[in-house]
Amino acid sequence: MKIAIYPGTFDPITNGHLDILERALTLFDQVLIVIARNASKDPLFSETERLDLISASVKNHKNVRVDSFEGLLVDFAQKKKATAVVRGLRAISDFEYELQMALMNRKLDDTVETVFLMPNEKYTYLNSSIVREIARLGGNVSDFVPPVVRIALERKYKAK
Amino acid sequence: MKIAIYPGTFDPITNGHLDILERALTLFDQVLIVIARNASKDPLFSETERLDLISASVKNHKNVRVDSFEGLLVDFAQKKKATAVVRGLRAISDFEYELQMALMNRKLDDTVETVFLMPNEKYTYLNSSIVREIARLGGNVSDFVPPVVRIALERKYKAK
Amino acid sequence: MKIAIYPGTFDPITNGHLDILERALTLFDQVLIVIARNASKDPLFSETERLDLISASVKNHKNVRVDSFEGLLVDFAQKKKATAVVRGLRAISDFEYELQMALMNRKLDDTVETVFLMPNEKYTYLNSSIVREIARLGGNVSDFVPPVVRIALERKYKAK
Amino acid sequence: MKIAIYPGTFDPITNGHLDILERALTLFDQVLIVIARNASKDPLFSETERLDLISASVKNHKNVRVDSFEGLLVDFAQKKKATAVVRGLRAISDFEYELQMALMNRKLDDTVETVFLMPNEKYTYLNSSIVREIARLGGNVSDFVPPVVRIALERKYKAK
Amino acid sequence: MKIAIYPGTFDPITNGHLDILERALTLFDQVLIVIARNASKDPLFSETERLDLISASVKNHKNVRVDSFEGLLVDFAQKKKATAVVRGLRAISDFEYELQMALMNRKLDDTVETVFLMPNEKYTYLNSSIVREIARLGGNVSDFVPPVVRIALERKYKAK
Amino acid sequence: MKIAIYPGTFDPITNGHLDILERALTLFDQVLIVIARNASKDPLFSETERLDLISASVKNHKNVRVDSFEGLLVDFAQKKKATAVVRGLRAISDFEYELQMALMNRKLDDTVETVFLMPNEKYTYLNSSIVREIARLGGNVSDFVPPVVRIALERKYKAK
Repeated sequence: MKIAIYPGTFDPITNGHLDILERALTLFDQVLIVIARNASKDPLFSETERLDLISASVKNHKNVRVDSFEGLLVDFAQKKKATAVVRGLRAISDFEYELQMALMNRKLDDTVETVFLMPNEKYTYLNSSIVREIARLGGNVSDFVPPVVRIALERKYKAK
Repeated sequence: MKIAIYPGTFDPITNGHLDILERALTLFDQVLIVIARNASKDPLFSETERLDLISASVKNHKNVRVDSFEGLLVDFAQKKKATAVVRGLRAISDFEYELQMALMNRKLDDTVETVFLMPNEKYTYLNSSIVREIARLGGNVSDFVPPVVRIALERKYKAK
Repeated sequence: MKIAIYPGTFDPITNGHLDILERALTLFDQVLIVIARNASKDPLFSETERLDLISASVKNHKNVRVDSFEGLLVDFAQKKKATAVVRGLRAISDFEYELQMALMNRKLDDTVETVFLMPNEKYTYLNSSIVREIARLGGNVSDFVPPVVRIALERKYKAK
Repeated sequence: MKIAIYPGTFDPITNGHLDILERALTLFDQVLIVIARNASKDPLFSETERLDLISASVKNHKNVRVDSFEGLLVDFAQKKKATAVVRGLRAISDFEYELQMALMNRKLDDTVETVFLMPNEKYTYLNSSIVREIARLGGNVSDFVPPVVRIALERKYKAK
Repeated sequence: MKIAIYPGTFDPITNGHLDILERALTLFDQVLIVIARNASKDPLFSETERLDLISASVKNHKNVRVDSFEGLLVDFAQKKKATAVVRGLRAISDFEYELQMALMNRKLDDTVETVFLMPNEKYTYLNSSIVREIARLGGNVSDFVPPVVRIALERKYKAK
Repeated sequence: MKIAIYPGTFDPITNGHLDILERALTLFDQVLIVIARNASKDPLFSETERLDLISASVKNHKNVRVDSFEGLLVDFAQKKKATAVVRGLRAISDFEYELQMALMNRKLDDTVETVFLMPNEKYTYLNSSIVREIARLGGNVSDFVPPVVRIALERKYKAK
């Protein structure tokens, strides 16, 4: 069984992440979508909230597991018997950072391959931080995130 | 009357900003140069100081108004009956961020077009943060900012 | 009256070009879409064919004129009393070439401003050469070009 | 069985191509390395020569097939029941071209996913055209291509 | 005597820095490797620790001096009679930032030339922050830094 | 004596090339500006014409020699006892190509270091091909090339 890991901060998960996830599911038998703990120093959503939002967003997808990890990605991948790490490729700055991380992971463990997938072009410029910014300013994010995330963003910023 | 908005942090306004403003004035009947409140979490100059520096720097330009706004740029643009948002294009990293913002604004309101203008090449690598850095280290910023901004920078860093 | 020039090779015109044209029409009173003669050494469509395809594609747009020119763009712009040159911004490589051309035109005549507009993201990766390539290989280009261009491409490649 | 296609011009195949091929083999059950006919207008090696050089270079790899195709890649992929197209990611210019091709292929057929893999960093700046150039100038290409290709390059340029 | 300055934060010095240093030594009679004080607001290693790690790492290199400075780089260069500033070129984002700094330094003092050198490709994606990140997560950094730095990183993170 | 080679096509030499040459002369005792024969398949100016234009353009510079070479740059550098190859860094696309060439040269001979210098920002977007294009269209190139080159361009295009 071919297992892939899709790691990220997911603060929060967006339609762009879900697009990549669905593409990964056509290539692998199982995809583990995992939150890298401590990667973001001051997230908007707690780890538990982010795990809940991911779980709610992928509940209709078979062959998806949701998890979080601490430490090196390659160690987690090995423990989970994953042969690939999935990453979405968007803009140039992404590209460089992604290649840097992939290369570093490869130096630490050459048995896990990083696989880059291209999201639908309508998600090319979408990321979690711009979604948070629009929600913070009271804009409508329903084109960018699943309904459950939109509601969570509204609550979060109303509470502030 | 064709109205354009030139939004930014302007912490502080530089000669590069003024170069773009003058180009925008050849295309539009009126340009509103506006500070996006809260965009910078810890600015060197307060909103009032920045508005004063902009006003002093553009006082000889007709058809320019100075303002600030909170919330979504597209809502502000609509309120001001602006048909365009003006942005300067400099380096690659700029380019990506600018396209991302333009696309997000378009998704929120497709009636306001973002117009990218190219500054004089001598301002290609100029931005507010490098001006602050040079001023902080005691360097001469008179090539980069209007005299009123140079004086304000000197006072600010002497006071620190 | 604010007149803008939208120059290109248009071999052939695509939906991406039409998207930029429509955006330009919200900013300017008249847009001249013009073919730069000799820019492409060995075009698929002759100048007359390209002019016809453009004219057929923009026939429902008011305030659009179609033309061709030889020589320097800035001289043509001056003759036509245009205050702006419109260019679409797509990928990074575009961006550099466009900035280079804009800067060179500015050095030759600083009264014509180049205005960069961003196409709908679904046209981000579209250009005439990839459309020709897909048509040459027998693929369906109806998502990428107006019907009149699709038919012309089919005829052209059948004839070959 | 998960089948991937690795298309290219391979004029000639380099160690960078072989590196990507080996990575693809850890992800897919079978990889078809295929020459896109007519993609290069004036190749150094004929299609037959290139197929021979590829076959000789991959003869120790199981689960690899060598082929060539004409027409659209997506049609060929469908015929071969491939679910993925494999591409190597090197420099920025590559990145843009690759994304453009991937997006166009996706528009023509959304059931074949393009998978980008990163070569070993020692191949980051390697491509077939620079290998041909070094060989043409009499340089030593043994670090860049398999022995069989090195010999073929030497013969080709001696004959010229 | 041709003197060059190699400035940076060096938090900590990596094998990539040492690679650039060695290349600079083939071009200049003396290279001053210098820490820009205050450049990093919250460094992992104190200035004294970083100076010690650099000194230990370059102890076998002749013609190298280690120092730190405050204020403008161009003023320091002039005081040290340096004719060049050495910088390593890695990824695109580096490239832009480096050009921006070089241009700003040139505007402040046109007698000091910035010289860009390319590291060995195995260090293309290496930088101090990714080394700190790997060490923090308990990964093995012995391929990326000199032994003395590896030990210092281990101590630092064990203490935390 | 530190000798550097500044190789190129120089079809024709521009003020941007001369700017880089002058910067190189502050770093090296002698600079050889050399034409890579056969690099451009169909140059506007013959090798002899290009050598003459370079010689006329640098006649007031001490420590400059003009030459041409065939074969690998690293072999020529070794023959001339050069320790460095000088290259100008302009836009992103340049950057990639330059790094690729530098890396390939290094693989062929690791004793010659490629040194990248940044031209004055007014030459950032200048290159020989755009100069030829402007001259061909009858534009004024006196800001871009030395007078002797301007005259040669005018004669060349009048003759056509």
